[in-house]
Amino acid sequence: MSTGFFGDIKPVTYEGPNSVNPLAYRHYKADEVVLGKTMEEHLRFAVAYWHTFAWPGGDPFGGQTFDRPWFGDSMDDARVKADVAFDLFSLLGVPYFCFHDADVRPEGKTFAESAQRLDVIAEYFEGKMKETGVKLLWGTANLFSNRRYMAGAATNPDPDVFAYAAATVKHCIDVTKQLGGENYVLWGGREGYETLLNTDMKRERQQAGRFLSMTVDYAKKIGFKGTILIEPKPQEPTKHQYDYDVATVYGFLKDFGLENEVKVNIEQGHAILAGHSFEHELALASALGIFGSIDMNRNDYQSGWDTDQFPNNVPEMTLAYYEVLRAGGFTTGGTNFDAKLRRQSLDPEDLLIGHIGGMDACARGLKAAARMIEDKALSGPLEARYAGWQSAEAKAILDGKRTLEEVAARVTAENIEPQPKSGKQEYLENVVNRYV
Amino acid sequence: MSTGFFGDIKPVTYEGPNSVNPLAYRHYKADEVVLGKTMEEHLRFAVAYWHTFAWPGGDPFGGQTFDRPWFGDSMDDARVKADVAFDLFSLLGVPYFCFHDADVRPEGKTFAESAQRLDVIAEYFEGKMKETGVKLLWGTANLFSNRRYMAGAATNPDPDVFAYAAATVKHCIDVTKQLGGENYVLWGGREGYETLLNTDMKRERQQAGRFLSMTVDYAKKIGFKGTILIEPKPQEPTKHQYDYDVATVYGFLKDFGLENEVKVNIEQGHAILAGHSFEHELALASALGIFGSIDMNRNDYQSGWDTDQFPNNVPEMTLAYYEVLRAGGFTTGGTNFDAKLRRQSLDPEDLLIGHIGGMDACARGLKAAARMIEDKALSGPLEARYAGWQSAEAKAILDGKRTLEEVAARVTAENIEPQPKSGKQEYLENVVNRYV
Amino acid sequence: MSTGFFGDIKPVTYEGPNSVNPLAYRHYKADEVVLGKTMEEHLRFAVAYWHTFAWPGGDPFGGQTFDRPWFGDSMDDARVKADVAFDLFSLLGVPYFCFHDADVRPEGKTFAESAQRLDVIAEYFEGKMKETGVKLLWGTANLFSNRRYMAGAATNPDPDVFAYAAATVKHCIDVTKQLGGENYVLWGGREGYETLLNTDMKRERQQAGRFLSMTVDYAKKIGFKGTILIEPKPQEPTKHQYDYDVATVYGFLKDFGLENEVKVNIEQGHAILAGHSFEHELALASALGIFGSIDMNRNDYQSGWDTDQFPNNVPEMTLAYYEVLRAGGFTTGGTNFDAKLRRQSLDPEDLLIGHIGGMDACARGLKAAARMIEDKALSGPLEARYAGWQSAEAKAILDGKRTLEEVAARVTAENIEPQPKSGKQEYLENVVNRYV
Amino acid sequence: MSTGFFGDIKPVTYEGPNSVNPLAYRHYKADEVVLGKTMEEHLRFAVAYWHTFAWPGGDPFGGQTFDRPWFGDSMDDARVKADVAFDLFSLLGVPYFCFHDADVRPEGKTFAESAQRLDVIAEYFEGKMKETGVKLLWGTANLFSNRRYMAGAATNPDPDVFAYAAATVKHCIDVTKQLGGENYVLWGGREGYETLLNTDMKRERQQAGRFLSMTVDYAKKIGFKGTILIEPKPQEPTKHQYDYDVATVYGFLKDFGLENEVKVNIEQGHAILAGHSFEHELALASALGIFGSIDMNRNDYQSGWDTDQFPNNVPEMTLAYYEVLRAGGFTTGGTNFDAKLRRQSLDPEDLLIGHIGGMDACARGLKAAARMIEDKALSGPLEARYAGWQSAEAKAILDGKRTLEEVAARVTAENIEPQPKSGKQEYLENVVNRYV
Ligand SMILES: [Co+2]
Ligand SMILES: [Co+2]
Ligand SMILES: [Co+2]
Ligand SMILES: [Co+2]
Ligand SMILES: [Co+2]
Ligand SMILES: [Co+2]
Ligand SMILES: [Co+2]
Ligand SMILES: [Co+2]
Repeated sequence: MSTGFFGDIKPVTYEGPNSVNPLAYRHYKADEVVLGKTMEEHLRFAVAYWHTFAWPGGDPFGGQTFDRPWFGDSMDDARVKADVAFDLFSLLGVPYFCFHDADVRPEGKTFAESAQRLDVIAEYFEGKMKETGVKLLWGTANLFSNRRYMAGAATNPDPDVFAYAAATVKHCIDVTKQLGGENYVLWGGREGYETLLNTDMKRERQQAGRFLSMTVDYAKKIGFKGTILIEPKPQEPTKHQYDYDVATVYGFLKDFGLENEVKVNIEQGHAILAGHSFEHELALASALGIFGSIDMNRNDYQSGWDTDQFPNNVPEMTLAYYEVLRAGGFTTGGTNFDAKLRRQSLDPEDLLIGHIGGMDACARGLKAAARMIEDKALSGPLEARYAGWQSAEAKAILDGKRTLEEVAARVTAENIEPQPKSGKQEYLENVVNRYV
Repeated sequence: MSTGFFGDIKPVTYEGPNSVNPLAYRHYKADEVVLGKTMEEHLRFAVAYWHTFAWPGGDPFGGQTFDRPWFGDSMDDARVKADVAFDLFSLLGVPYFCFHDADVRPEGKTFAESAQRLDVIAEYFEGKMKETGVKLLWGTANLFSNRRYMAGAATNPDPDVFAYAAATVKHCIDVTKQLGGENYVLWGGREGYETLLNTDMKRERQQAGRFLSMTVDYAKKIGFKGTILIEPKPQEPTKHQYDYDVATVYGFLKDFGLENEVKVNIEQGHAILAGHSFEHELALASALGIFGSIDMNRNDYQSGWDTDQFPNNVPEMTLAYYEVLRAGGFTTGGTNFDAKLRRQSLDPEDLLIGHIGGMDACARGLKAAARMIEDKALSGPLEARYAGWQSAEAKAILDGKRTLEEVAARVTAENIEPQPKSGKQEYLENVVNRYV
Repeated sequence: MSTGFFGDIKPVTYEGPNSVNPLAYRHYKADEVVLGKTMEEHLRFAVAYWHTFAWPGGDPFGGQTFDRPWFGDSMDDARVKADVAFDLFSLLGVPYFCFHDADVRPEGKTFAESAQRLDVIAEYFEGKMKETGVKLLWGTANLFSNRRYMAGAATNPDPDVFAYAAATVKHCIDVTKQLGGENYVLWGGREGYETLLNTDMKRERQQAGRFLSMTVDYAKKIGFKGTILIEPKPQEPTKHQYDYDVATVYGFLKDFGLENEVKVNIEQGHAILAGHSFEHELALASALGIFGSIDMNRNDYQSGWDTDQFPNNVPEMTLAYYEVLRAGGFTTGGTNFDAKLRRQSLDPEDLLIGHIGGMDACARGLKAAARMIEDKALSGPLEARYAGWQSAEAKAILDGKRTLEEVAARVTAENIEPQPKSGKQEYLENVVNRYV
Repeated sequence: MSTGFFGDIKPVTYEGPNSVNPLAYRHYKADEVVLGKTMEEHLRFAVAYWHTFAWPGGDPFGGQTFDRPWFGDSMDDARVKADVAFDLFSLLGVPYFCFHDADVRPEGKTFAESAQRLDVIAEYFEGKMKETGVKLLWGTANLFSNRRYMAGAATNPDPDVFAYAAATVKHCIDVTKQLGGENYVLWGGREGYETLLNTDMKRERQQAGRFLSMTVDYAKKIGFKGTILIEPKPQEPTKHQYDYDVATVYGFLKDFGLENEVKVNIEQGHAILAGHSFEHELALASALGIFGSIDMNRNDYQSGWDTDQFPNNVPEMTLAYYEVLRAGGFTTGGTNFDAKLRRQSLDPEDLLIGHIGGMDACARGLKAAARMIEDKALSGPLEARYAGWQSAEAKAILDGKRTLEEVAARVTAENIEPQPKSGKQEYLENVVNRYV
């Protein structure tokens, strides 16, 4: 039974590209088969609880803009919020959602009370999940909003904060497992520094490594089958965050021997803030064997902060899903909309419209990427470009069978003078434009 | 005997802070002892051959502005250039210089001819080094200017380019060793991509790793005692370079088992382009055990490209040298001025003035940093801030003797509720301002 | 008769969206009518002589990559270049081209010789223009490459440089008029500063204003019917350029009473460098009544310098052409491709492919924008949003018939408490996605 | 009588550069004479009420960190806040403060109630100002925090919001006048847009112009003697703000004929966000005749948002005060610290320490700048550089007595070929380093 928050809006259905109904899908058809899987199986959409239900519309210069009946500090408010959330999941027909502990229950006066409240809501969720068939893509702990974390969670100068954070993560993994969550995410919003003047970066990095190792050990011990994911972000809220980007996280994982235990959850907006394209971060994670999941959104190119907008640029999204497909597609991961309405988008229907637009744009991106793969539109030319490395001598170099001086000797002996070939960038860009 | 290029300018001497002589040091006194070493030993200044002698003053919208008698393509030009270079080294009294092969000899028609020309110049250098006492901080190969490298050197789709680059590096290491160079640097200006559409990043990364391993092996084999250094840069000339920043290089080194063989040469301007402060990159390299050397310069904060200006902001440089000193100071590394005059600075004396200003600013930074260390101005408060981690229980966590669930249990049992303490950032910033 | 540079490539024709021929238009059909005009009349495409024929492929870290038979310093080279240029114009079927004096003739030993050479080429152009029907969208003077301009042209500390620049512009306007150019452009690449320390900004701004006034007066006097255009750019090559962006140029024009005499030529890449979206600059110029023409290209969002790539993102281009159409479309202006191939795109056909992709993307953008206008897809909701300002009282405020205290009194009297309405941003973004 | 909030801290006094007392001035000596005025008269320091007393320490990812006894919604809280504020002003010995209406009184249920509450506090302020001698540098209205302003104040699509904002500004000017405020500031944090898709920029710009004209008229009518100031900021909170930077504001003022009525309040952090150096914005405002006042703070160079930190880089501040002094110094303007503690700086004494550090850095900057002026360290070389423009012919050009063709004719007749001279940038940078 619906909460009525969305009025008489009916479940969103696929009406095809010519529909002008703002509450219909024009491109996302859950059961349409693409490259051997349904779009639902490929995209694995999830709604983010925080932006969609917990964010009041504030920004650094203004307060709440949204009027939501569930805004408040009581457990009843939390239940109304959950009711509306599952209404929205059902109206959209998304298979997944994601949440932080702090999104779903009011903070208690003690750790124990906060934990107990989360348990109550988790049970409430269980019922609703059974009822609706909606599943948990991932759970996570909010280790950044409360003032206790202002100087870091795992990387705090105070070991009591490390302990508090550890207890929180333990409980959140428990709850994630209980709800059948397919991944567990860590985003280290306060794991960084405001100033090096008061920071022992080496020590803090050790603390972070130890924290992650303990987390991985615990997840294994309790038989959590999901993937542990780190979500890189270069900065904001802090001046510098230790999980800066995919490359940085990789070095960190290698350092603590966790590169086979932990993968990354890559967010478009965070890639942009780190100075990378989204597809770069995806391609790199794939190359390094740590690709896990994505936080789909979009960052405004003229803003220097994380705008977390709903994505809409299909050509860009095509390149993103192309990398996802090249990486073999999602296994436990999925497409989580870490996206929030603009604070002026006040209407309940805006919550649906934002997601519909994002899902349709993803669907277009996925389909275009799939066709590029089917046509070998990019992979054909790529293979040709590197064909020289298939020669026996070239392979010998890469396989470690040649020394620098041997290669050097051959250059002189054969008087090698390489001749450059066109990189064909504009040609390839035009090829992509055939698909989007 | 001087070339006369600098007219009747006499060797630059220390005249103290009240001097208004633009051709005197006001702060750099080579033999002044700071923290137990002379300033010369601490700073280990080097002049960069490329910017100072080879760069014609062009930019993307304009051509040559400098009139230099040695501009030309002959070996005689190369010798005049060397003469003037050693004049400048002597006038400045710097102990070191650095060069690329392409800076010092005209390119030949074949690899063999280019190599032979480099040998001729190397011999010429040997004489001048003996004469003047100036030493080689590092040598390097220019693997980016020639069109053969347009699509990468080690990471080129054409294995012949890899081979040509390998032969070039081999020879440059030979020459560096011959000249007693204390380090060998690799900067991968073309090791990256312009577009992912034509790039196999995983393969290229493998090529780069193989290339570096071969280089390290060769250096060992010939008994090169210096340090192999990678110089990170995020982009420019390419859209993305694989040696993006210190954290990225670390992950790369770990991947190929080279983290104990190779260190980093950190440039201020490249740190800024990568979204970091210079001191961040230095502190991180030190924390990771890969700090090697610095390319001292300054990037304009309003420009999005590498401006390679002479440094002048003493408060910022103080923080940089503070990290250098915390890392134990330079061993084989030093302070190389990877800095060029503005293209409007046409006068021969400007070459001296740029270096003098940079050296004086470094000297002020070093002295301020040394006094902060002597006073424990920052390290005292730092130790106090992390004091909690000295407790037995906290150490047990870090040492791997506690599990997540044990720590969590303690939080509930002891009802831990951490109380934040002031981070004192403004206090510490004011403390630094006492020293600069 | 063709030069043969492009081999046996035939004139590029429209083959429709399903074509996979890289040398065919898939969207640009010159004579297709859109909103009452042909696409050719709407888009008014021009090829830029500099990037396409004069640029050797260099970047700050590498030299020439392109092999072009016309690279050289003779007038014969200049004629070959012109021959190939008109070949390309004809193959593409573009109606216009644009050039700087320095693109088309080798610099002479004196001003007089340079001018005479330009006259020779202009005459050569006249013949080819008659022959092919290709017209001149605009001419301009290169006041930035030669070292004499290193410290500015009009804004140089040396009045002789001002004079030299004035003579150059005079002659370039003469030639532009002679060739029937429909606009004359000024881009002040050196009109700015590298450092305020040696700059009298107030004086230089006066010099720039005087220069522009003289230029406008001269153009009028000789009966030049075209539009004088300023092309804003925030920086690069200098640290700061006086024609920073549209808003800055507007203030400058107002200051010298030229806001009705001069319009702006807006480049996508320059908008991005200035921190704006392209559509922002277009909409602002239109609002201020100074919209003139566009330099169509694209800037890489991860690069901090002007990459001048061929455009390819249709959703973004749709928003740009939407603003062009809202501004009434081009009058004397047009779509000039201030875009260069990537330096690795070595093949002659790449020159065609780059333009074809850009033209097709423009055509898609134009058509999508036109349909949005026909459907009032955005203008309908916009009108509704501001409907309140149609009330008599609101109009009275805007018309200057109310004082602050009168309005304030009404707020208290009527106890006004405004109620916010949804801004519907996501809805509108989804609407746009129906068209692209 | 003190509130006791700052414990037993005594008024901050000047102890000289060797003091290590964190609660003493090391450089700011209020009555020290510099260039004929006391430092107090030059710097005209003001404390900003909002950051120092109203900001709870939140950021986009975390809530309140500061415990302040006055946090709450009652008028009693507001009075305690005022008591502590004047304690701080007195302890610091600053001559001025600045405030928004929303900083000093809780919002009422109606406009009338809000206004009445402001009147009550204003009266309370009057008493405290008389008691302490602290004056009001400027007052301003908060037209951005309340959700009614989410889509703009003067530029709102709803004319009722314009009216509400007008009433608010009227009342704030009344109060500012009543308190003897020396300026009135308008910062248009919501006067901009989130998306052009729902924005009529031309109309909104007209609304903004009308609003400003009404404000200027009203201020004149009531005999307000202070200066009306606009504070430019490029973006944040919105994607684009109409008062982008100094150049943009100038064009806007010209458009509405207000360039002699309104000046600018320039903030360091906003200059940086707009892509400019602080000294650029100051020098430009001075050149345009609209320099008014400064919001002194510092923006983190690695953050893309407004960090509003206390300033500490003396070399940069020297260049800023150099421009202030060149502009003739402040008249009604002053140095307002639009700076907030980092959210981890929890201690009451941190409020003092932040200001002390900022004031000392300003004092150092002022003194260094003054000595550069006394020595003509920069102005001497500057005059020499432009000396050519003193010739009769050069003056004739600038005075409008020469046409383009006359100047061009002279170039040919005299065969002018300008010879570039060194710009001496590094020399001048070294000169500045003699003073800082
Ligand atoms: Co995210
Ligand atoms: Co985000
Ligand atoms: Co370097
Ligand atoms: Co550099
Ligand atoms: Co252009
Ligand atoms: Co450009
Ligand atoms: Co401010
Ligand atoms: Co600010």
